[in-house]
This record gives sequence, structure tokens and C-alpha cells, in this order.
Amino acid sequence: VHFPGKVTEISLPRPHGKSFAHRSELKQAKRIVVKLGSAVVTRGDECGLALGRLASIVEQVAVLQNQGREMMIVTSGAVAFGKQRLRHEILLSQSVRQALHSGQNQLKEMSVPVLEARACAAAGQSGLMALYEAMFTQYSICTAQILVTNLDFHDEQKRRNLNSTLHELLRMNIVPIINTNDAVVPPPVPNSDLQGVNVGLYDSPPGTDDAKLIDIFYPGDQQSVTYGTKSRVGIGGMEAKVKAALWALQGGTSVVIANGTDPKVTGHVITDIVEGKKVGTFFSEVKPAGPTVEQQTEMARHAGRTLASLLPEQREEIICCLAELLTERKEEILTANRKDMELASATGFLPQPLINRLSLSTSKLNSLAIGLRQLAVASRDSVGRVLRRTRVANNLELEQITVPIGVLLVIFESRPDCLPQVSALAIASGNALLLKGGKEASNTNKILHQLTQEALSIHGVSDAIQLVSTREEVEDLCRLDKMIDLIIPRGSSQLVRDIQRAAKGIPVLGHSEGVCHVYIDADASIDKALDIVKDSKCDYPAACNAMETLLIHRDLLRTPMFDQIIDMLRQEQVKIHAGPRFASYLTFSPSEVKSLRTEYGDLECCIEVVDGMQDAVDHIHKYGSSHTDVIVTENEETAEQFLQQVDSACVFWNASSRFADGYRFGLGAEVGISTARIHARGPVGLEGLLTTKWVLRGEGQTVSDFSEQGSMKYLHENIPVPQGGFH
Amino acid sequence: VHFPGKVTEISLPRPHGKSFAHRSELKQAKRIVVKLGSAVVTRGDECGLALGRLASIVEQVAVLQNQGREMMIVTSGAVAFGKQRLRHEILLSQSVRQALHSGQNQLKEMSVPVLEARACAAAGQSGLMALYEAMFTQYSICTAQILVTNLDFHDEQKRRNLNSTLHELLRMNIVPIINTNDAVVPPPVPNSDLQGVNVGLYDSPPGTDDAKLIDIFYPGDQQSVTYGTKSRVGIGGMEAKVKAALWALQGGTSVVIANGTDPKVTGHVITDIVEGKKVGTFFSEVKPAGPTVEQQTEMARHAGRTLASLLPEQREEIICCLAELLTERKEEILTANRKDMELASATGFLPQPLINRLSLSTSKLNSLAIGLRQLAVASRDSVGRVLRRTRVANNLELEQITVPIGVLLVIFESRPDCLPQVSALAIASGNALLLKGGKEASNTNKILHQLTQEALSIHGVSDAIQLVSTREEVEDLCRLDKMIDLIIPRGSSQLVRDIQRAAKGIPVLGHSEGVCHVYIDADASIDKALDIVKDSKCDYPAACNAMETLLIHRDLLRTPMFDQIIDMLRQEQVKIHAGPRFASYLTFSPSEVKSLRTEYGDLECCIEVVDGMQDAVDHIHKYGSSHTDVIVTENEETAEQFLQQVDSACVFWNASSRFADGYRFGLGAEVGISTARIHARGPVGLEGLLTTKWVLRGEGQTVSDFSEQGSMKYLHENIPVPQGGFH
Repeated sequence: VHFPGKVTEISLPRPHGKSFAHRSELKQAKRIVVKLGSAVVTRGDECGLALGRLASIVEQVAVLQNQGREMMIVTSGAVAFGKQRLRHEILLSQSVRQALHSGQNQLKEMSVPVLEARACAAAGQSGLMALYEAMFTQYSICTAQILVTNLDFHDEQKRRNLNSTLHELLRMNIVPIINTNDAVVPPPVPNSDLQGVNVGLYDSPPGTDDAKLIDIFYPGDQQSVTYGTKSRVGIGGMEAKVKAALWALQGGTSVVIANGTDPKVTGHVITDIVEGKKVGTFFSEVKPAGPTVEQQTEMARHAGRTLASLLPEQREEIICCLAELLTERKEEILTANRKDMELASATGFLPQPLINRLSLSTSKLNSLAIGLRQLAVASRDSVGRVLRRTRVANNLELEQITVPIGVLLVIFESRPDCLPQVSALAIASGNALLLKGGKEASNTNKILHQLTQEALSIHGVSDAIQLVSTREEVEDLCRLDKMIDLIIPRGSSQLVRDIQRAAKGIPVLGHSEGVCHVYIDADASIDKALDIVKDSKCDYPAACNAMETLLIHRDLLRTPMFDQIIDMLRQEQVKIHAGPRFASYLTFSPSEVKSLRTEYGDLECCIEVVDGMQDAVDHIHKYGSSHTDVIVTENEETAEQFLQQVDSACVFWNASSRFADGYRFGLGAEVGISTARIHARGPVGLEGLLTTKWVLRGEGQTVSDFSEQGSMKYLHENIPVPQGGFH
Repeated sequence: VHFPGKVTEISLPRPHGKSFAHRSELKQAKRIVVKLGSAVVTRGDECGLALGRLASIVEQVAVLQNQGREMMIVTSGAVAFGKQRLRHEILLSQSVRQALHSGQNQLKEMSVPVLEARACAAAGQSGLMALYEAMFTQYSICTAQILVTNLDFHDEQKRRNLNSTLHELLRMNIVPIINTNDAVVPPPVPNSDLQGVNVGLYDSPPGTDDAKLIDIFYPGDQQSVTYGTKSRVGIGGMEAKVKAALWALQGGTSVVIANGTDPKVTGHVITDIVEGKKVGTFFSEVKPAGPTVEQQTEMARHAGRTLASLLPEQREEIICCLAELLTERKEEILTANRKDMELASATGFLPQPLINRLSLSTSKLNSLAIGLRQLAVASRDSVGRVLRRTRVANNLELEQITVPIGVLLVIFESRPDCLPQVSALAIASGNALLLKGGKEASNTNKILHQLTQEALSIHGVSDAIQLVSTREEVEDLCRLDKMIDLIIPRGSSQLVRDIQRAAKGIPVLGHSEGVCHVYIDADASIDKALDIVKDSKCDYPAACNAMETLLIHRDLLRTPMFDQIIDMLRQEQVKIHAGPRFASYLTFSPSEVKSLRTEYGDLECCIEVVDGMQDAVDHIHKYGSSHTDVIVTENEETAEQFLQQVDSACVFWNASSRFADGYRFGLGAEVGISTARIHARGPVGLEGLLTTKWVLRGEGQTVSDFSEQGSMKYLHENIPVPQGGFH
């Protein structure tokens, strides 16, 4: 184990003397010691404190303390504070006279005397404490100063005194701030702690090709610790910290060593750790049985490459086998599902619609199996399809072929039937897959995943699909940007939005909103208008392709058609909100909309008046989400202009917005609906899980052969590709 | 104009009494007053200071002061500080006795007396100043306290005294901290300042559908100021701030009003403003002649929609016209180009290669025109192509057609020939385009853009392509995520990396690195190996498709082939670095590589030894960048396995890596090379600038017609699409 400096340590003594096994348990910590590495409290130049960081630390400690925890700080920084203070005082006394006569910038230009660390510590201690006190006062928290030396711990009596002092302070809700009594101890080794890249412990010298942050460190791994010279970390630095951490762990205190200066984590590192997030290195005595999520991703990518290289009929076979298992082993599945249902009802936390979605039945499993068999057929024509073939020159042939994207992460809520569906999609497209399901379906997901692996094993690729522990935080998974190529959230639009926010650097396939419009033109057929509005709004109001705003041609106001539409909506108990222009036409209007961009997702909609087709298009461009928009008219010319102009993923003429769906479009299987403008748009089928690669076969050609002096010429002839052509 | 609260103001008095016209000039500000709104220094609950923000403000002020500027702070926060302090003292005195007996959490449970603001201010002032002093000391900066009341400014003598005090302090390099003497003035109106959404001034009540932050505010716009009741901003809040800003502006002081609490900007808001970034609202007396970049984007999107709706032959005509203009008006172009060249030589900042790329000539313009005419032909078959046609049911037909992506932002360096090329690509694909060129080519770019607009005007879409002012910061452009759909950087890999980092939420088409491998198999032909290695490394070493690592089968070590390859590389003056395994085979090895992931971009490469094809594939997967990888072998089976397994955008057999290029692939025009895994991969032609939309034509069908009780059935019949079929 190699490790860098610049660390913040945090240890979480467990009341009953047993350390926590998992990060997720850190939430329960009652007493927390925050030890600040000197790099955390000082600035890079070591002159002066890093005030912003210090303030952030105080804020986080205050938040935790005010949650009822007992917080302690082991600080450093007195030397830095004192050095800056002494330097300043000395320069000031030298310079006041000159400054008065000759103007500014004197201070900076003067030479700084070399200052002794012990003197600095003495001069800085009181100022540092005053700063802590002033800062904690802002959170109604009292602090107390505790100065100790090494020897204090060797004296039994002193140790007992210290212990009882600390206990008394904690009992009085006071935060003890502990520091070395630097004025009476040997000065610290300079820079012992400040080198190296920094986030926690690494498995190789930080900065080298293979260095990876160790997420969880087990005492058993200590043998492999090598204090590499490359890491330039002094003995007083990280080795001592690891030893202290292991010693604390033996005493039942959990420890996390993390970087307190990384701009990516600064601001929340302490509270993030307590919330169980993957920050720094967590010391644990309990080695979990399974692989870490990083190991799972690696295994999946590796097996996925084999999956991709299978013959299409082999992938088809795996999917058919999974379909078979779903019906053959339905008793096991339903038993596990009943267990989840019972737990969900017992806790009573889950709302009824979610419980319905959680439940499986024989008929659900049967139709799931039918869907999988259809997908198996579709899978024949996916990976390795030749899209384009070009004769670049004589005996130099180029092909563009479809290949899997790589490793997919699918995050789904509640519905366990999602698991075999998504797995089959991944198998059909040759992609590796990480599955993260909801906790409420964990028993069902577990058996379904086992069956999936069983099916995969017939061609030796059972690792290609991995089920991620429910303990993993979605946010942590979204950070694996070097390992995951595409994230597909399947669930509420809130889930999608959260993931889009968290997934920095990984593309997300999905849509977070569907503000769909139906425009009733002046030339609309009354029957079609009624049917389409009713179906678009009422068939399934929570769907993303449901109508949210009804746009009506102004000539239709106060016509029988208009009255019938309103009557129908009232009869269907749709709550109507009026757009500003619609409201201005009415004497007694319904409540005016707050925003024309609202996605109601319920039996509610907005009605607005427009001057005509062009005005409707402008409204849709201004307030829509480019999902699905509909025109109802009998005028073909108006319709074609609407279809051409509206810049949405789906544009319909005289058809319900609810048709915007992979199954209804006949795409075979639906991966999701995308409102992104690149890669895949609208309902996405299997091809949304594929990308392409270019394969060039030559006989030693170089580009200089094609230069003006060269012997060869580009031909660039298209070679026709047969439908469904494979290499 | 409506506006929210929570503001930090910053004013930049110009020494000679004239305010700055543009944000970019703010860098020159010598004297800066930072006024902190009360929301900036207090926490949300108004009890206590926002210490992190305060520390960050101190740090930024210190940085600017230490750059030699004269900084002043107008603070607030004494009341908050004092309120918290008094509350704490009172509670403490009440509770110490109880706490000693009954344990913790007493403080929180006790009732807090109502405190008078003036008393709080008096109690807080000294603490606040002590905090400022302690903080600034950490940056070697002295502070001074100045307390004033309204009346002090009405008394001529007092004003003069104040003025001379401030001047003297600034002369001595001391930061004056100015505050109201709250103890002797009427208490402030509570919350007058704390409502609303917050980043600066808005053109509509913040939070409504249309509200946009005003980037630059001109005094002439003041008539349109409406202090809307919706914004809930008291008179003492924003109106007073705008008035003060305009008054300061009249006196020659530039003002920026910005949000100091938005987490997106906090941390750097003050230094960002001084660096000229688009933060908050800038007050300027000089109204720029042209539209803002936001207006340009809107204009481009609007005209782009018309461009997209033109007939293919009309877009073709525009491109041909542009090609014509490039030769017809070459004198104008070359004159402007000479001006740029002279300026570049005169300043002497530009390195020679960049100057070469800047220069245009008649022959360059001619070949540019030829390229454009080829693109015109290719453009016929781009927008509106039918990719798929499905009969969903009787009289319900679905089409998937190609459409433009929307608004592209192309950022290019030096080479002005990029402008007509990229413009022609945008026209061919029906996309709107924002162009951001380098300052060094501004004259050439200007005339080339004029000609482009001239060509566009033949079909009334001259606004579809906009040239962005050279003053605009790339970083600010990358923030327009609701307005721009795709960014294409054309330039160095550093430019691409910077833009990928800055472009949060907007996809970037490009590659930041190309670590390409050539693997020489045991069955390689010696001649092919020599030619391919030489061409791949030496033809153009700076290209992204040049070889960086040469992988050699271990059986080839110490064979004549191996020696010839090394001799050839030496002859071509290629510096060789040894991979760890290669180094271990040699007695006197070249310098060992630092990382096997290095992109040298020069006449340098790494050589590593592998056990065979499979080992080469593993090496490429571990250390490559998935750009272009090559196998040299005569064994077809080995080759096909390599082509199948290597997971890169381009995989070649017996051909130079330098063929990875849009022109060489015969794509007609190259948009760029992408190493992304979605949307477009490898060399990208016109189709990389297109997306699709789904068009459904029905006669009133609803999805309930297809339910079990319904009357209709899905057919999902494929309707064949003729090659190049258009709707």
C-alpha cells in the first residue's frame, strides 16, 4: 500500500467497542473525532491558514454536533497561524516608519526573518483558538482548548485526568479542540505530510499508471503495505497514520482517512463520510464476502467482451434460456417476491402504487418470457451488422460495423420485472451490465439475477451481468466515469433528473420531462379532436407522453367543438388551468397557470389559445420539452408544415401522443425514451445500445503512398451492403 | 427590470473618472470596492455568519490586494454576529448550572429572548472586526475599521475627513472595512433584501417563465425599470442598489451586481468579475453596437429553423454560392489576411507554426472552393432522409427522418480556412452555427463570415451563422447549455480538453487524446511492418492518429526485423522510450517510460514487448485511448481476432494508423474525430451533425383503440425505403 499526504482523518468510536463493518453504518456514529492534517488547515505556501477550509470544517462539525453527536477536533495549524502572525508583526514594526513616508507595498518587499517553529506555535495557539471560538460561536457551540504532549499519554494519572476532562466537556455539549503543546515538544519534521497525490490510500504509488484509491482497508492487508520511496511520504506521515488507524480499529473505533483539500470533495468531506459516501479509505475489520463494485465493473467489462464476440445465435440462445428459466423456476421467483411484498407491507413505508409494481405473478412472468423470446429474434440482427463498406483503394477495404457500447449501468426502482428485460437487452446488444435495483425488491432481484447468470453461463459469460449491492449509493456509482459508458435510469422523472445531475462525464439515456402538446387547428375534425385529447390526457396521465398543454385555435373559442372538449375534460375529472391568453378571453376563468412549462403528470392540464398553426409551433418551441407534439387538423398542408417545423423527437398528425413508445412504434424492445438531441432520440430500441467501429483491411498501405509523389489513388467506391449483412 | 435580493456588489472606480465599456476591461481596475449584501455574510437562518463565504471573500480580496490593487470592503453582518453572540451569552449564563447537573443539549432547548438590532450591532461590531483582522492577517494584510452614518456624508467637513482617511489607508496598503454605525442609526428593515431568486438583475420577475438575467445594464434602460410586486423586493433593497449603481456609474465608477450566495458561483465571484467573466449584471454607459451572444444564438436558432426547412437544392445553392465568393472576392480576403499576418508578426507572440496556419493564399482558397463544391453535392442527401418507414396499423404510418441537431458552437484556433469549411458543413446539415475564432485571425474571419452571410442571404437565412465576438470567453459560451446543442472544438487537444471540462451539460464532439498502437505480430511481413511503423509515426507526428506505442511480439526480439525497425526509427530521429518489460530484456535500454498512456505528439514513441496478439489486445485495452490501433501480420486468423476484439473507434490490419481520417475514409467532409462511444465514433462526416425525428400520420387513432377491448391491431409492417428516399 502506498499513500499520499494531505489527509483529514475521521474516526468514529462506536459506543460498545465494536467498529462498523460498512460505510453505511457510519450514520449511527455517536462520537466522532475529526483529526485535521496540517495540509488541511494551512495554505499551499504554508504561510497562514486555509480559512475557507477551516470555516467549512467548523460548519460541518457544528452540523454534526447540533444533530446530537459528540464531536472532538484534533487540530493543527498553530505553527502556521503563529508564523504568519509573527512575520506580520516583525515586518510591521520595521516598516511603519518607511510606509508612512514612502507609500505602499513596503510590507511585501521586505525580507522575512526565519522563524522558529516552537515560537510560532506559542504565538499562534491563542489566535487559532480565538478563531475557532469565534467561528463556533456562530453556531451556538462552545469550545474548549486541550493541549497535550506525547508524555501525557504515558502517565497513567494524567491519562485518567485527560479522559475525565474530555468526558465532562462532551457531557456539557462542548467541542474539545485538542492540539499538541508545540511550544514544549520537538518541532515537527517539515513537509513530512505534504507530498503526493491525495485522496486516501492507494494500491500503487500515487500518480503511476495503475494507482487506485483503496476504498476499504482491512487489517489483514497490512502485510502488503510498502512505504514506497516514490511516494515521497515521510515516516512521520502516512505510515504513522495507518498504524494509528489500525490501533484505533482494534479498540473498536472505525476510521476513515480522506483528503481534505481536493476541490472535488472539499466542503462536505466530513458530513459525506458520516453519511456513508465513498470518500477516502475506510478501515474495516469485516471483509465483505463479495467483490467491490469496482471489481464487479471490471469483471463485467471483461466478460462483456467475450459476450460481444459470441455468435449472434449464441446470444439468442442465452436469451431464450433466460425466458425458459422464468417459467421453469417461477416458484422460486414468486417465493422471493412474496418475501419482498411482506417486508414492504410490514414496514408500511411503500405507497400502494409502488407495492403493485413490486408484485410478480405467473401471468406477468409468462408475458415477460414471451417478450424475451421476441427480443431473442431481434438480437440476431444487432451486433456486427455492416452499415457501410467502401473500397478506399485497391485492396484497401473499409467497413463500418455495429458494436456494443461497453458497460451499461441500469438503475431501476421497485419493478423487478425490469431486471430480466434489461438483462436481455444487454445480452442482445453484447453489452456488459451493472444492475442497481431498489432495496424493496432485493429478494426478487437476487433470484432473477441468479437465473440470468445461469443463462449466461451456457456460453461462459456469467460475469457479464452484475447485480450491485443495494448498499451502494447511486451517487457513488455515477462517479465511476472511467468504467461505465452509459447510464440508463428506469423510473420516475425525479430519478432521471437526480442521475443526470450526479452523472458527470457519463452520458445518460433518458428524459427528465415530457411537456407534450396537442394543437387543435381551426380545420380539425370534432370527433378526432375529442378522441385524441381524451386519449392523450386520460389514458395514463402519469406517462411522459401524456398531454400537458392543449393549444386551441382562437377561431374555435365559443364554438360547439370547444364546448364539447371542455365538457369531456370535466367529465373525465381533468383539472383545467388557463394560460394567460386563454384567461383573458374568459369572464370566469379557471386558475391561471404558474408556468406554461409545467408537467402535471396527473389529471390536470393547461389550455392556451393560439392564433394558428405557426403560433402553436412557436409556443411549442418556447415552452415545450421537445418530447411529443400533436396536430389535429383535416388540412394536409397545415399538417405537413407542422410536422416539418416542430422540432421535437416525435411529431404526430391526427394521432394520440400516447403512441410515442417503443412497443407501439414496433421497435421490438424499448430501452427508454430519449429527449437528448444526439445518439438516440425519441423511443429507443436495441440500436440505442450499439455504437460503431471502423475496420480497415489493407496490404501494407501507408498514407504517403497516396501523396502527390505516391503511387496510389483513392477510389472511395461504395460497396453495396446486403440487408442485414454480417461480416 | 425586476430583480432579486441576495446580492454582492462590486464597483470598480476608474482612476480617470470614466467607467469601463466592457467587462473585459475590468481587469485594469486599480481600486475596487466590494460591498457585501447582508445575505452574503449571514446564514440562511440569520443567526450567525456564513463563515465559509466570509473566508472566501477575504481570500479573494486578499488575492486582488496582493496583486497591487487598492481594495475596500463595505460590510454588513455586525447584527448577525452580535445576535448570535448575545443569544449565546444569555443562554449560557442561564444554563450553566442546569447543564452541570442534567447533561447536554440544554442550550438548544431553552427559549431565546428577542434581541434588539442596535444592541446586537454594538455587541457584534468588535467581534466582526476581530474576525476580519484574524482572517486578513493570514494573508499579511492589515485592515482598518471605518464606521459611518448617513449624516456623515451630508456634512462637507466630515466627508472630506473621511475621504482623506481612506486615501491615507489605501496609501499604506491597508484594507478599509466600512460599515454603518448601526448602534446610532435606525434599525434596518428586516428581510428587505432577502427575497427572490438571485443572480443579478432580471428582465421579468425572477422565477417566471421568461425571466432572464440581464448581462449588461445601460442607464438608458432605466425607464423600463418596474419594481414588480411579484418580486417581493422591498424598496430598501434592489431599487436602492440600482440607483446607487447608476449614480456611481455617472461618476465614472463601473459597477457589477452579482449573487454572492449561488453555490455555482460562490468561491470565485469577486475574482471572476474582475477577470471579466459573465457573472451578475454589469452596468455600462456604452451600449455595444451589435447584439449580445445570447441574442445571436436566438437569431441563429430562428434562422436555422428556416434553413432546415429549405429544399436540399436550395442549401446546395448556398454552398456553391459561398464557394464562388471565395474565389471571386479573393482580393478582399487576402487583404484582410495580410492585415492579420502583419499584426501577428508585429506582436511576435505567435509561434511560427501558428503563423503558417493563419496564412491564406490563392491556391488555398481555390482548393477550399473545390472542397465546398464537393460538400454541396453531399448535402443533397442529408436532411429529411427517410431512414425507416413502418405501417403501425391501417392508415397509421410512422417515419424516422434525419433532421439537424439544432445550434452548433464551433470553436477554432488560428486557421481561418476553418470558417467556410465549418459553415458549409452547417449549411449542408441544416444546422444553425455560432463561430468562435481566434483573435489572431479576426480580420480574415470577419470578411469570410460576411461572405458566408452573403451566400446565406440568397435564401433569406443570413442570420443562421453568427460570428461571436473575440471578446467572448469560451467558458461563458460553454455555459449556454439551454441554447446550444453541440460543441465542436477544432484545434489542439488542450483546447478540446479545456472545452470538455467547461461544457457542463452540452455534448462535445471531439477527442482529447489519441494513444494509438501498432502491434507487430510474429507473422508480420518485414516490409509492411517497416512501412507502416514509419508512416504511422513519422508522416505527421503531431496528429492524433499517429502511433505512440509500438507493441512487438516477444519472438521478434533480436531478429533482423526488430533491428531494422529500430534502425529505421533511429534514422528518422525518433526518440525511443522503453516500456518496463522491454527495458528488462535489454542491457543498455533507452530511458524507461513514465507512463504507458503517454501521447508524445512528436518524434518520440514507446516500445513494449508482448507475448502475442491476445497480450497486445489486453495492453491496448488497458493503456490505449480507443482511437486507432493497428495489427501487422500475414496470419488472417490472428488479424481477424484482433479486428474483432480491439474495442477502439478504428481497428486496422496491415494499414497505417494515419488512414483514420474523414477524407481518407471517403466521408466527403470531416467534422472531426470522436472517441466518444455514443452518437458518432471515429472520423465523423456530415451524418454526425444530424439527428432524427419520428413522424406519425394517422386519422384519429388512439392507443385505447388497440387495447384488448379495442377495435384495432398493431401491424408493424416495414415499408421499404428507397435509397436516398425523401419525404
